[in-house]
Amino acid sequence: MKELIASLSISVAIRRDIERDMRDEHAAVSLEEIKLCSPITDPEKIICIGLNYYDHVLESNMQVPVQPILFPKFNNCIVGPEDEVVIPAETKQCDYEVELAFVVGRKAKNVPIGEAMNYVFGYTIMNDVSARDIQLSEGQWTRGKAIDSFAPIGPYIVTADEIPDPHDLRISLTLNGKTMQDSNTKELIFNIPFLLSFLSRTMTLQPGDVISTGTPPGVGMGKNPQVWLSPGDVTEAYIQGIGILRNYYAFDHT
Amino acid sequence: MKELIASLSISVAIRRDIERDMRDEHAAVSLEEIKLCSPITDPEKIICIGLNYYDHVLESNMQVPVQPILFPKFNNCIVGPEDEVVIPAETKQCDYEVELAFVVGRKAKNVPIGEAMNYVFGYTIMNDVSARDIQLSEGQWTRGKAIDSFAPIGPYIVTADEIPDPHDLRISLTLNGKTMQDSNTKELIFNIPFLLSFLSRTMTLQPGDVISTGTPPGVGMGKNPQVWLSPGDVTEAYIQGIGILRNYYAFDHT
Repeated sequence: MKELIASLSISVAIRRDIERDMRDEHAAVSLEEIKLCSPITDPEKIICIGLNYYDHVLESNMQVPVQPILFPKFNNCIVGPEDEVVIPAETKQCDYEVELAFVVGRKAKNVPIGEAMNYVFGYTIMNDVSARDIQLSEGQWTRGKAIDSFAPIGPYIVTADEIPDPHDLRISLTLNGKTMQDSNTKELIFNIPFLLSFLSRTMTLQPGDVISTGTPPGVGMGKNPQVWLSPGDVTEAYIQGIGILRNYYAFDHT
Repeated sequence: MKELIASLSISVAIRRDIERDMRDEHAAVSLEEIKLCSPITDPEKIICIGLNYYDHVLESNMQVPVQPILFPKFNNCIVGPEDEVVIPAETKQCDYEVELAFVVGRKAKNVPIGEAMNYVFGYTIMNDVSARDIQLSEGQWTRGKAIDSFAPIGPYIVTADEIPDPHDLRISLTLNGKTMQDSNTKELIFNIPFLLSFLSRTMTLQPGDVISTGTPPGVGMGKNPQVWLSPGDVTEAYIQGIGILRNYYAFDHT
């Protein structure tokens, strides 16, 4: 997929071929016949932006950041739509976070804000599942965020041309059918061109890199009483123009 | 390299073949004729352990951690021996950190401490180059640590069988020939089997994963006056039984 992204970003011919194949009924496979995986499974980097919606900063009892806050996930975290998120015994406070993620299309270093959108290949949904007790007791968030299966991604990467304005998309999450998060990507503190440009000042971004832009308010930690995910739960993370990313939760029995 | 590591960990035959080739003078290439790269360039994960030597915790004005502190680097950070570390305009406080890194040999999940050493493929040196001003002003250390070229690794991965006791190795770093760090890996707060077991409780480790175990005292931040790396500097990171990892420093001129 990384190679496909890289070639699509430099060649319109490849894209034309794919679109032609998509119109060919004989080449098509029905969605019912297949199981969708995460649309990307091996990015070089998954970089998450913390505290990027004002109301979520408030519910988290944190300071509004003067610059984007970065934390990592790794490829061990990635699962696809309909997959189980496996909660390890280590955490008693597992939380959901619907996020708009953008996928980098071209190698990017020191990109000016005005050119940054040319480097975005497309958009997907990431559920930034978080072990709050681990995350918030250790100072660094890495261990509480980079847990196996804690980055459901999907159901698709929608190419950038299909989303005219990524900063005006409804974004919501339901837990067992009940709406928990419901906002709009126009509430982002740091928007996508700023984030891409900012990151590229210190890191070379590569085709396929996943940058998750942060979650709106309504996470389980911010509810009264607090809500933690448990086995049997199901979340549906929705973003307008992308779709629904549905996942189930289970305990680790290994 | 990841595939070689994975196969070496399950097959003694492959190892025998390699060792036979090494004794064949005709197959050998002199070190003078080649440029060594980092012995691993595409691990799934680079996980660094913070504050893992008591004296380094003190010089950092931090608390001794009750559990290992994790932070990430990504593959954009990796350079090899003799390579330049490129300091971005973004930082005025670039610092060195010699570290013993271990390389995972087999897929590892929920590994007991008593079995953990069976999952270690070998050892190498990592210089955990750090932009202190970025690292310490943002709460999360990711951005100040995961900068392009800020993870020199090498010069070799020494297989585990060649290092009978990784917890009794002299570890030191010189800056322009002057000794800045000089300690022993027996001073580690959390040792290698503990770290591997601990990490594997929440993350599946994969062959080739690099776990860097933290730096001893003597970093530039802890000196009086403080010492920051600048163009023309050269560091030699040494670990007994592994070798010397030498790197040069330059400003980013892009």
